[in-house]
Amino acid sequence: MIQSSAHVSVCSPQMNSISLVCLLLCTRVSSFRFEELTQYVASHEEEFIETLRQWVAVESDSSDVMKRSDLHRMMDMTADKLRLIGGSVEMLDVGTQALPNGSSIALPKVVTARFGGDPSKRTVCVYGHVDVQPAKKEDGWATDPYELTDIDGNLYGRGASDNKAPVLAWIHTVEVYKALNIDLPVNVKFIIEGMEETGSNGLDDMIVAQKDSFFSDVDYIIISDCVWLSKRPALTYGTRGNCYFFAEVEGPKKDLHSGLYGGTVIEPMTDLIGILDKLISPSGKILIPGIREAVAHLSDEEWKMYQDIEFDLESFKNDIGLSELMYSNKVDLLAHRWRHPTVSIHGIEGAFSSPGTKTVIPAKVIAKFSIRQVPNMDPAVVEKQVTDYLHSVFAKRKSPNKLNITMVIGAKPWLADPKHPLYEAGKAAVKRVFAVEPDLIREGGTIPIAKTFQDVTGKNIIMLPIGGFDDGLHSQNEKISRYNYIEGTKLFIAYLHEVSQIKKY
Amino acid sequence: MIQSSAHVSVCSPQMNSISLVCLLLCTRVSSFRFEELTQYVASHEEEFIETLRQWVAVESDSSDVMKRSDLHRMMDMTADKLRLIGGSVEMLDVGTQALPNGSSIALPKVVTARFGGDPSKRTVCVYGHVDVQPAKKEDGWATDPYELTDIDGNLYGRGASDNKAPVLAWIHTVEVYKALNIDLPVNVKFIIEGMEETGSNGLDDMIVAQKDSFFSDVDYIIISDCVWLSKRPALTYGTRGNCYFFAEVEGPKKDLHSGLYGGTVIEPMTDLIGILDKLISPSGKILIPGIREAVAHLSDEEWKMYQDIEFDLESFKNDIGLSELMYSNKVDLLAHRWRHPTVSIHGIEGAFSSPGTKTVIPAKVIAKFSIRQVPNMDPAVVEKQVTDYLHSVFAKRKSPNKLNITMVIGAKPWLADPKHPLYEAGKAAVKRVFAVEPDLIREGGTIPIAKTFQDVTGKNIIMLPIGGFDDGLHSQNEKISRYNYIEGTKLFIAYLHEVSQIKKY
Ligand SMILES: [Zn+2]
Ligand SMILES: [Zn+2]
Repeated sequence: MIQSSAHVSVCSPQMNSISLVCLLLCTRVSSFRFEELTQYVASHEEEFIETLRQWVAVESDSSDVMKRSDLHRMMDMTADKLRLIGGSVEMLDVGTQALPNGSSIALPKVVTARFGGDPSKRTVCVYGHVDVQPAKKEDGWATDPYELTDIDGNLYGRGASDNKAPVLAWIHTVEVYKALNIDLPVNVKFIIEGMEETGSNGLDDMIVAQKDSFFSDVDYIIISDCVWLSKRPALTYGTRGNCYFFAEVEGPKKDLHSGLYGGTVIEPMTDLIGILDKLISPSGKILIPGIREAVAHLSDEEWKMYQDIEFDLESFKNDIGLSELMYSNKVDLLAHRWRHPTVSIHGIEGAFSSPGTKTVIPAKVIAKFSIRQVPNMDPAVVEKQVTDYLHSVFAKRKSPNKLNITMVIGAKPWLADPKHPLYEAGKAAVKRVFAVEPDLIREGGTIPIAKTFQDVTGKNIIMLPIGGFDDGLHSQNEKISRYNYIEGTKLFIAYLHEVSQIKKY
Repeated sequence: MIQSSAHVSVCSPQMNSISLVCLLLCTRVSSFRFEELTQYVASHEEEFIETLRQWVAVESDSSDVMKRSDLHRMMDMTADKLRLIGGSVEMLDVGTQALPNGSSIALPKVVTARFGGDPSKRTVCVYGHVDVQPAKKEDGWATDPYELTDIDGNLYGRGASDNKAPVLAWIHTVEVYKALNIDLPVNVKFIIEGMEETGSNGLDDMIVAQKDSFFSDVDYIIISDCVWLSKRPALTYGTRGNCYFFAEVEGPKKDLHSGLYGGTVIEPMTDLIGILDKLISPSGKILIPGIREAVAHLSDEEWKMYQDIEFDLESFKNDIGLSELMYSNKVDLLAHRWRHPTVSIHGIEGAFSSPGTKTVIPAKVIAKFSIRQVPNMDPAVVEKQVTDYLHSVFAKRKSPNKLNITMVIGAKPWLADPKHPLYEAGKAAVKRVFAVEPDLIREGGTIPIAKTFQDVTGKNIIMLPIGGFDDGLHSQNEKISRYNYIEGTKLFIAYLHEVSQIKKY
């Protein structure tokens, strides 16, 4: 909303007649026709929203194989859009997906695009996804989830904020430069996938395969698949990883009737409850030896950063409907959300889980729990700590049942240096568009692709969110505001300029 | 198989010409044409199996409203069969069943029938049900569950043992007397329902309503909806009751993402696991104060009875696939199966229960657990003991979440006196047909209708099973053997005679 560009502009909009000369000059001295670019965005707001409407209308739910043709169509639309604005587009085949019934279906292709290839410029690669979480009106949506609906400036629809509007904002950023015939200050590449919501099947292999081709000239990778912490814009410099465990207790060879057999067998469910109860104390302290000891200490500097972050405990509590949180002060709460591990018990497979009553002794029960990973935890070490600990707890029960612990996901945390020039560029861009300093935040969740990009390509990564803190990703009534969508596009425009200012060598 | 009737027979089959005089005489001196009756059974074995085949072919699954027309047809077939052999049949409307979507459908009518009304004779009422548990070939059946299949003398099919063959065996008992033109030694009534597997909807009200009409002249109620403990025939004189609890812990107003929110909230699942773990010790000891103290002491006499029962621990272990049971000796095992309470945790509603992984913090979770009731426990007292205890355990956790305990079923145990003449009659009948003493057993499960009959009508009840211990009620590959079906019919024939010998006043 608030733009505070005080740059000296060598090229004014009135000087179109000598634009070629001017552009060359501009590139050289980095003059930035910000006003012109953002005015174009402002005057095309309805058009940009119309495109978002068309994208949200596609039920590109990657978890539902019945929607696979919609998902393929979504990838085609993305490729078409990128071609239309002049990109060199390629759709990469990443193979097939095995279905539980033994058959397999094609994965959506990964869309790549390239704008410009000037070796004297920086090259950024924007990552995003155009698949969505499932959504049905009956789940409790106030509006049709696949019909973008504007209510008081909020644009409701599945995928609006996660991640269709941010992807479009990036595409529009390039489009605006092109429409005004202004040379892009950096080369821009896109990598847009369609399986993010179900684990990015095929993407890791593709990144490894493209390491020395597609990624060879990339300087920085930008991810806009996250949200602000409050109404203040934010830059995200870390995510937690996740170690996801299955704890299986197996007893009799079949489910038993609790009347006929209750009292004759040690029930697997009792054993499972018994070991789960030893994971975490009532106040939230992790009881697995060694876990807490591995965690990087909170420095005074970090404490100070958290202290300065805009975060309202009361509205956070109101949003989730709780009168009391695990920690009652901002710093502790943010620290335990971002940079301390936590244990969550998600549920139990194999036991009775429907409404009503059933008098069953389940024969085999599998608890699902996960431990969020933070620096300096190591998933391989955590796997051993958890496995050893639970087996020792179980052994004390002297149960005849069998315990089996498996770590099915071991995703490392990702952490960037918020003092890196990429972040300085982000701060400058936020200041230019919003006239405020951004919050430097971390994300409690896991975005495994960030760590993969970092490990495989060795590039620096920034997460540059434009979604609002209350956008309801993965929930009913997901939305993005007009404000965040349009000002977010301006932020991306400003960001490309700022990145072009980073000294190349 | 082995028949040992040494009764002096005044009426031989050759004396049909003077049958009226003879019958009056027979009634008086209780001569019993057992050989003739059982020979009729033996020679009609294939016909009786054919009828069972027709009954099993009807998918009278009371839990599936889509099968309701099959269930109505099953009740009609039952009524027709009873009419065909001369019964006065009435089908009682017991109202409608509310469906989750707000609509309602008709409950299957309860079939009642009456054979004979001689006030000088005893009157027995046979209770049974012709609805079945769900079954699908895909569940792991070796054969089509609705096509009775004879493999090595075992008749496989859903409902074969529970409860269609026993109901037919009772109907055939009456049919055999009629076919041979032998007067029934007692008046026989039937009450056959079609909702047993889903909680006997409507039946309790019907019993209360018919207390002074249908039940007024009934002396004894016979239930054959259970099985033997081993290969030895058994009489069942007790069942456990059941107190079924919901323990609900409610936290945030919606499910939360464990990445975004893990570490900020006390998770309801952690609280729930914490209180469930305090219900029972690793070795199976109930930790709720007051529960164990209420249980009737095991007398020396009872201990001796258990000691004499035919029960093979090894084959019990093999059947359920366990190398170790909760108790390693027969008496303790049977005592904890039949006459001690047990706690079973059946599962948790509201948490993640599917295969795969989901990173959810469930907002509201409801544990389902039940405590089997035995003399002298009182469900109302148990409700208070459990509620008070879990609230006190929960209070110690100092959780901001809310706990709600509800007892949704409070079924009392049923216990008969195994020395009552009804059981003496059972012993005599078993001895006559099988040439062995029956085991006197209890049932770990709950048959609430037994307690309802006892409490509402004040009549004496016997459970007289003919199903085999390995019939697999409610499981895949349910069956009844030809032997149990046919010899069971003979047992019922003998039993009616023995009951007629019980002194009336
Ligand atoms: Zn996303
Ligand atoms: Zn039954």
